[in-house]
Amino acid sequence: MKSSLRNIKLLLEYDGTNYIGWEKQGKGKSIRAVLEATLFKILNETVKVIPAGRTDAGVHAKGQVVNFKTHKGIGVEELRRALNALLPSDIRIKSAREVDLDFHARYSAKRKLYKYFLYTGKVVSPFLYRYVWHLPQGLNLELMAKEMQALIGEHDFKPFQATGSSVRDTVRTVYKASVKKKGNLFTFEVEANGFLYKMMRLIVGTVVEVGRGRFEAGKVKRLLSGQDFKRGPTAPAGGLFLWRVIY
Amino acid sequence: MKSSLRNIKLLLEYDGTNYIGWEKQGKGKSIRAVLEATLFKILNETVKVIPAGRTDAGVHAKGQVVNFKTHKGIGVEELRRALNALLPSDIRIKSAREVDLDFHARYSAKRKLYKYFLYTGKVVSPFLYRYVWHLPQGLNLELMAKEMQALIGEHDFKPFQATGSSVRDTVRTVYKASVKKKGNLFTFEVEANGFLYKMMRLIVGTVVEVGRGRFEAGKVKRLLSGQDFKRGPTAPAGGLFLWRVIY
Repeated sequence: MKSSLRNIKLLLEYDGTNYIGWEKQGKGKSIRAVLEATLFKILNETVKVIPAGRTDAGVHAKGQVVNFKTHKGIGVEELRRALNALLPSDIRIKSAREVDLDFHARYSAKRKLYKYFLYTGKVVSPFLYRYVWHLPQGLNLELMAKEMQALIGEHDFKPFQATGSSVRDTVRTVYKASVKKKGNLFTFEVEANGFLYKMMRLIVGTVVEVGRGRFEAGKVKRLLSGQDFKRGPTAPAGGLFLWRVIY
Repeated sequence: MKSSLRNIKLLLEYDGTNYIGWEKQGKGKSIRAVLEATLFKILNETVKVIPAGRTDAGVHAKGQVVNFKTHKGIGVEELRRALNALLPSDIRIKSAREVDLDFHARYSAKRKLYKYFLYTGKVVSPFLYRYVWHLPQGLNLELMAKEMQALIGEHDFKPFQATGSSVRDTVRTVYKASVKKKGNLFTFEVEANGFLYKMMRLIVGTVVEVGRGRFEAGKVKRLLSGQDFKRGPTAPAGGLFLWRVIY
């Protein structure tokens, strides 16, 4: 006997180092494939898991949110425990709960917060290297803070969209954007109502070019206003974390 | 032309997860083998690396110290950079310097500090699991703190030596011993003039048995005074760090 349809929301974290990213594509393990295969073991039912954000290969999550629909009556706490028992240690379910049927992990999200970590010390610790961009050189914090500030507001972020993306509407609103420094560790944060493909890594890659003196100050403003078309490189994946999704 | 003999001291950290420990033994990579092979590439000379402590499989180091002797004239900063360029990212050389010929990483060490991390939360983070013992249950901090306290002083630590060790003189002096709690993370610390084989992990394994109510309070004292012979199990390797060596 089937129960009625339910919508389950999971909050999860993962170390993306050993994954080809969220999406199934070609060789290697994807977060999605591992999660769906584990759910199949528990539910004996094929489910489609929808994420708030499809993280790229090597990108991490402290607060990814997903949802999926099922007819099975399993309790959410039992489900959480079963998932954590069967999933590899680098993917953890922090919570599971039942939500309204119209909840959609991506479309219902109001804001997402990404953080990016960059380490400028000479030697990067064996306990940190998977989670930072290691760039052992001086960076001007003040200059970079001003570039980050320029992201705030509603803008066409097309200059920070990776080529090859099919997304047409590239206008997004950035609510918060900052960079902080503690010792040799820089933390970049951007909270927005949506992110274009590789947007956060292109922002960091561009702002760092200003911080190291390769681009002149005001770069972000010039890119966003169409006065300049030369952005920086894509920052490496390992420093990026999907930190929080706000509904 | 050969320079005169030099003695080089290295300060290093490593993530022991993927190693069979310090020592070469059978299958798998040892920290020592990787380090000596890398030194051979740089010096074109076979050197014997002496560690302050021979860490076991899966044990980590934040502050391991080693020394080796060479006739080569390479500068210590050049050596440090070359090592970090060639070593895997999970072994890092924090500093290199030339020391007196009679310096011996183990025999010259006055004290060593080991830390052990234990996490009692329901879900252990993907970013933490390699570095903690995950024991999702309540532990009595006060009781455990008293057990740790009982370690301080000069004692015969044979009850905390793993069977199979050939060490005869099992008297050691513990200068500091404590356990602290921050949220769900417990940190055990022991500073001593020497550690017997698996001593730190047997201490933690025993003290935790008191903390979870399986052993009565006063266990450490009874073991050290020979009134009791039943110690706890060896705590898992992943939570252990050789934290600092004091000369």
